Amino acid sequence: MAVPPQSAARVEVLRLPAGASERDELAVEEPLEIRVNGRPVAVTMRTPGHDEELALGFLLSEGISPARAAIPPDLPANTVDVEASGFDPGRLERNFYTSSSCGVCGKGALEAVGVESSPVTSDLVLAAELVAKLPDRLRESQPAFAATGGLHATGLFEPTGSLVCVREDVGRHNAMDKVIGFAFNEGLLPLERHVLCVSGRLSFELVQKAAVAGCPIMVAVGAPSSLAVDLARDRGVTLCGFVRDGRVNVYSEPWRIKA
Amino acid sequence: MAVPPQSAARVEVLRLPAGASERDELAVEEPLEIRVNGRPVAVTMRTPGHDEELALGFLLSEGISPARAAIPPDLPANTVDVEASGFDPGRLERNFYTSSSCGVCGKGALEAVGVESSPVTSDLVLAAELVAKLPDRLRESQPAFAATGGLHATGLFEPTGSLVCVREDVGRHNAMDKVIGFAFNEGLLPLERHVLCVSGRLSFELVQKAAVAGCPIMVAVGAPSSLAVDLARDRGVTLCGFVRDGRVNVYSEPWRIKA
Repeated sequence: MAVPPQSAARVEVLRLPAGASERDELAVEEPLEIRVNGRPVAVTMRTPGHDEELALGFLLSEGISPARAAIPPDLPANTVDVEASGFDPGRLERNFYTSSSCGVCGKGALEAVGVESSPVTSDLVLAAELVAKLPDRLRESQPAFAATGGLHATGLFEPTGSLVCVREDVGRHNAMDKVIGFAFNEGLLPLERHVLCVSGRLSFELVQKAAVAGCPIMVAVGAPSSLAVDLARDRGVTLCGFVRDGRVNVYSEPWRIKA
Repeated sequence: MAVPPQSAARVEVLRLPAGASERDELAVEEPLEIRVNGRPVAVTMRTPGHDEELALGFLLSEGISPARAAIPPDLPANTVDVEASGFDPGRLERNFYTSSSCGVCGKGALEAVGVESSPVTSDLVLAAELVAKLPDRLRESQPAFAATGGLHATGLFEPTGSLVCVREDVGRHNAMDKVIGFAFNEGLLPLERHVLCVSGRLSFELVQKAAVAGCPIMVAVGAPSSLAVDLARDRGVTLCGFVRDGRVNVYSEPWRIKA
């Protein structure tokens, strides 16, 4: 697969102890300003590409209903604008304080930092054998990671194990936002019959994004955090971690994974 | 080494295909509210422990001069308060908008998202052979990673390769903030005669924190991003990436690393 040109940059590097000076490909990281109805609301450090999807997924994860995202020609570089009718900036600020940016801490952590979402009730069931194969399929579809070693990925899979979409980014939450933005554009939300697979570890924030998108099963190569598991149990999401070498650890709603 | 009790939590897990239900240790993730002179200014998702150091390092990285941090007994759980005389909340909000949260994007990315700091002029020089050993020494000092597989680490080293301090966290920026807060408490800032070593990849944000702390050499097991290299070159920091198996890639200020 070709590496998207804006995902990797060539940089001079001195390789020791050999002493050779060469050109190396690194993952590109640049700021993106997200606007809603023309008003700047957030900036994220991301890998350029699929910026409209990133903005849509980010806002959906914050509980905002976007209409569409665009990059008008008169906008400054690294800026994307999202239309959202009925958008209440006050609500977004509260959301940022209580989630991204996040929580008031006298209450329980989940209440404090969680974005409200309905429990995921999908009756989707997968074989452990199929789940175990998803990380390798994701890795095979990461052109820019292979070149740079510096990118996280999220993949959207069908229950057959067929890959629908993969997105890469220096930030793991951005890769997830891009996939959710893609799903929004394709009319796939809520993701009741899909699986999300991530290349790294599972944080609270990633599970929150999947739960808001209605996805019943999350798969990760790496470890979940304690709060990621707590949230998955609270929202009815099946969390599979340390998925490697044919093994699958299931931390929540294990009935969705058949041995 | 003992695992700090608040760093890991025991969670029930179903292991497939074996089908065994067991207890697994996961990295703890909880929100921490950071206050300055009693006023809430930020919340971060972090692994509990060394919360005062985290708050101090976070504020130093934002260009704020703290006096001391404390967790008074009457504060809600997961809250830390930092004294900072002459603290201007308006400045912090601008900083958050232009750095953590971050940047106006019509300008160059470095100008837009960078916190101002002096160039690092330390004449510290290290042997590549010594640099190559630091990631293993860091890993050997990560008690909670060994148990959970879910924690990033930052280590502070002397030029002899002797480890001064290691901190672990689910967030890589938090591990760095904790080490910088430790250095502040110990009177070690600026870190002109020290090396910072991180367990993962090098983002723009991590290099920014090291530059503001005055550290001349950063070492990482993983890949740097393009903007991390740009910033290191701009601030005179030596960036060593992909440090593994005896090899060292030097991306900036290579004169500090002897073959």
